[in-house]
Amino acid sequence: VPRPLIVVSNRGPVTYDRDDAGRRVERRGAGGLVTALRGLRDRDDVVWIASAMTDEDRAAAAESTPGIRLVAHEPRAYDLFYNTVANPFLWFLLHSLWDRAVAPELDESFHVAWRDGYEEVNRAFAEAVVAELDNEPEAAVWFHDYHLFLAPGFVRQARPDALLGHFVHTPWPTDWSALPEPLRRQVHEGLLANDVTGFHTARWAASFRRSCVDAVGACETRVTHHPISIDPTEFEALSRTAEVRAAVGELARSRPEKLVVRVDRADPSKNIVRGFHAFGVLLDAHPEWRGRAQLVARLDPTRERIPEYAAYREAIERAVREVEERHPGSVRVELSDDFPRSLAAYTQYDVLFVNPVFDGLNLVAKEGPLLNERAGVLVLSENAGAHEELAPWVVTINPNDVEGQARALHEALSMDESERRRRAEGLAAHVRANDLARWLEAELADLEAARA
Amino acid sequence: VPRPLIVVSNRGPVTYDRDDAGRRVERRGAGGLVTALRGLRDRDDVVWIASAMTDEDRAAAAESTPGIRLVAHEPRAYDLFYNTVANPFLWFLLHSLWDRAVAPELDESFHVAWRDGYEEVNRAFAEAVVAELDNEPEAAVWFHDYHLFLAPGFVRQARPDALLGHFVHTPWPTDWSALPEPLRRQVHEGLLANDVTGFHTARWAASFRRSCVDAVGACETRVTHHPISIDPTEFEALSRTAEVRAAVGELARSRPEKLVVRVDRADPSKNIVRGFHAFGVLLDAHPEWRGRAQLVARLDPTRERIPEYAAYREAIERAVREVEERHPGSVRVELSDDFPRSLAAYTQYDVLFVNPVFDGLNLVAKEGPLLNERAGVLVLSENAGAHEELAPWVVTINPNDVEGQARALHEALSMDESERRRRAEGLAAHVRANDLARWLEAELADLEAARA
Repeated sequence: VPRPLIVVSNRGPVTYDRDDAGRRVERRGAGGLVTALRGLRDRDDVVWIASAMTDEDRAAAAESTPGIRLVAHEPRAYDLFYNTVANPFLWFLLHSLWDRAVAPELDESFHVAWRDGYEEVNRAFAEAVVAELDNEPEAAVWFHDYHLFLAPGFVRQARPDALLGHFVHTPWPTDWSALPEPLRRQVHEGLLANDVTGFHTARWAASFRRSCVDAVGACETRVTHHPISIDPTEFEALSRTAEVRAAVGELARSRPEKLVVRVDRADPSKNIVRGFHAFGVLLDAHPEWRGRAQLVARLDPTRERIPEYAAYREAIERAVREVEERHPGSVRVELSDDFPRSLAAYTQYDVLFVNPVFDGLNLVAKEGPLLNERAGVLVLSENAGAHEELAPWVVTINPNDVEGQARALHEALSMDESERRRRAEGLAAHVRANDLARWLEAELADLEAARA
Repeated sequence: VPRPLIVVSNRGPVTYDRDDAGRRVERRGAGGLVTALRGLRDRDDVVWIASAMTDEDRAAAAESTPGIRLVAHEPRAYDLFYNTVANPFLWFLLHSLWDRAVAPELDESFHVAWRDGYEEVNRAFAEAVVAELDNEPEAAVWFHDYHLFLAPGFVRQARPDALLGHFVHTPWPTDWSALPEPLRRQVHEGLLANDVTGFHTARWAASFRRSCVDAVGACETRVTHHPISIDPTEFEALSRTAEVRAAVGELARSRPEKLVVRVDRADPSKNIVRGFHAFGVLLDAHPEWRGRAQLVARLDPTRERIPEYAAYREAIERAVREVEERHPGSVRVELSDDFPRSLAAYTQYDVLFVNPVFDGLNLVAKEGPLLNERAGVLVLSENAGAHEELAPWVVTINPNDVEGQARALHEALSMDESERRRRAEGLAAHVRANDLARWLEAELADLEAARA
C-alpha cells in the first residue's frame, strides 16, 4: 500500500472564483510546478496544501474540500512573503542575477519582510502540515520550491518523526553570501530538516551539499537528483487539437526557409537580450542567412510589477530594435501567453534556441524536441539543468558568450539532415523514455527509501 | 642554502623613466603586490620578471640588469591583455561583480583579446621564465595573481621538472561559468600546472578545489593558504614621519567626537556606495550621533577608463549627496591617492569601516589596527579574506546588508572602552605576530615542500 502523501506548494492544483451568477467555479492552477504535479490530484490518498490566492479561495479555505487544504495567509504577510522575499530576492539569488557591487541592498524593510512575511507564511504552511499529519500520521510530506525553505524545519520541531521531503525546482547557486546570517543558516537548516532534498541535476545537488557545509558545517541529509519531465501522451494529444493545428498552418504559411524559435517567460534568467544580440551577430557574419532565417521569440509576460522585470522588458525591446534596424524582418516577437502558438512553434522550428543564464531544468528543451516535425536542432545552454541529460544531442552554448551563440546557431542551421535527424530522434526518444511519471516514481521512491 | 627564486608578476618592483636631463631614473613600482614582495629585491638570489610599462622600461628590457628581467610585450597584445581581459573581465569574475542577466556579454573581440592578448602575454612571460630557468635550473618559480593564470602551464610544457608555485591575491569565486569553455578549462589547467597554488584563506582555497573539480574533474595539486600581511616596523616608522604627523594634527583639530574612517581604492568590489547608505541609515535611526560622528572616506581613484568604474564613481557621488542632504557635514570624501593622509586617518579612527563585497584579503584591516591610537573598533565584512583570521576581534557585517551595517556602526560607536581596548589590542597583537615576513616564509616553505 503506498503511503498517503501531503503535497505542499505555494500554488495549488486549483483555484476558485465566482461566475456572474455567483456560483463557485474551479480553475486550474497556473505554473509549471502545478502542471507537473497535477496528476497527483486524482489519487485519493493525496492531500495538497497550498496558499489561498483569490477571495473565493479564502472562502474555500474555511470549508473542508477532500484532497485540498488552502491556507488563508494574513494579506500583509503574504504580500511581504511573495513580493519582497520570494520573487524579488530568492529568485534572483537562486539564479545569480545581481551585480553584487550594488544589489541587493538589504534595508530594514527586507528584514521585516523576512520575519513578518517569509517566516510567517512558512510557519502557517507548517501548521497546516502538522494538522494534516494529525489526520494521517503515516503520511509523507513533500514540499516544493523556494517559497517553502523554512517550513520543513518548523514541521520537524513539532513532529520529530515525520517523513519529510523537499524538491527544489530552481538551480542551487554556489554562493549564498548575499543572504546575511542568520537568515542563510535558517534556509539551510530548514532544508536539512528534510529526510531527503531533491534537485533536477547532479550539479545543483553538489552545489547544495557544498553550501550546507559552508552555511552550517555539514550536510547530513539525503540529497538526490532526478530531472523533471513532461507527459508525452498529453503533449502529443495537445499538439493535435484544432487550435494548435490552425496555428501550425498559419506559421507554415508565413515562415521563411529556416525558423529559429525560442519560447520563454520574459524573465532575466532566460537570457533573451543576449539571444537577440547573438541572432544579430549571426546575420552580420553570415549574409547567406539574411532573408532565409527568422527568429520567432514567444515570450510570456511575467512579474511585471517587479522593477527589474520592467527594465529587462525594455532591454529586450532595445535589442529587438537594434537587430531589426540592421536586418529588417529578421525577428518576430510575440509577447503573449498563448500555449497553442508555442506548441505550433515547437512543431515548426529548425533550431530551438534555449540559452538561459541559469535554469533549474528548462522544460522547453524537452517539449520542443517531442513535438518538432522538421528534425530541428536544439541549441542549449550549459547552465540549463536539462543540459546534464540532453548534452549528447544538442549544440552546447555558454550563456554569456554571444559570439559562441552566433556560431552555434550557424552550426545548427548548417547541419546536414542525417545528423539533425540522428540528434532529433535521440532527444525525442530520451524524453519519451524519461517522462514525468518516471520522475514522480523516482521522487516518491526516494521519500520511501529515506524512511527505510 | 636557499633555492634561487624567480618571482613573476605583471608589475615589477621598479619602473624606469628619464629625468629632464635625459638620465634614467628608477621609481618604485606601484600596487600592494609589489609592496608586499619588495623585500625580495634585496636578495641576490632572486630574479624578478615583470612587464615593461614605460618607454624607458622597454629600453631597459633590452639590457641586462641584475635581479630584474623586464618583458617588452607587443603593445597591442598588452593592451588587449590588460584593458580587455585582466581588469574589465577577470577582476569582475573574481569578485562576482556582474548582473549575469546582462553582463558580461562576450563578443568576437573578447575571444580575440583572449587569444592575441591574454594568451600571448602569458606566453611571453613563460618564455622569459624558461630563459631564466636555463640560467638557474634549480630555481623555484613563483607566479603572482590573475594576470598570469596561463603562464605556469606554458612553462610546464617546456620544463616538465621545474618547481612552480602561484599565489592568487584575489578571492577565488565559486562560479566560473561566465567564462566559456575551453577558456575556463585553460585557466584551471594553467594553475594546476603549478606544484603549489596559494591563497589568502581556507575559503578561497576550498573554492579553488571545488572549481577545479567542476572545470577539469579533479584537483591534483597542492593548495595552501596563508594570509598576506604588512611589515609592522616599516608601518610604524612611516607613521612617525613629519608628513604623517602634520596630517594627524590637522585631522585631530578638524575632527568631531567620533570618526568613522574608510580607506579604499574606488573599486566596485569595495562596497563604497552601500557604506554611505549605511552611514545615512545610522544617522536616521540614531539622532544621538548627528553632529557627533563623521564618516571620512579616503578613496583612491582607480581604473577610471573602465566604464563600470566611471559609473561606480557617479553612484558614489549620488550616495554622498543623499546623505549630505539629510545630514549636512556628516561625510567627508577625499578622492586622492595620499598615503600619509591615509596613515593619519588610521591613527584617528574610532571605527574603521571595511565592508567589501568580496576582497582577497584587505590590508586596510591590518594597517589600521596597527597604527590606531584610540582603541578604535574594526567593522569588517565577512567576505573580506582578512575576516577569517580577525573575526574574534571585529564587528562582523554582511556586505549586502545595509541595515546590518548601520547597526554594526552603532554597536561599534557605543562600545565601552574596556571592550574596545581588548579588541584593538587583540588585532594589533595578531598583526604584529603574523607579519609579512611570516607570510613570505610560509609561502617559500610551501614551494620547498612541494618539491620534497
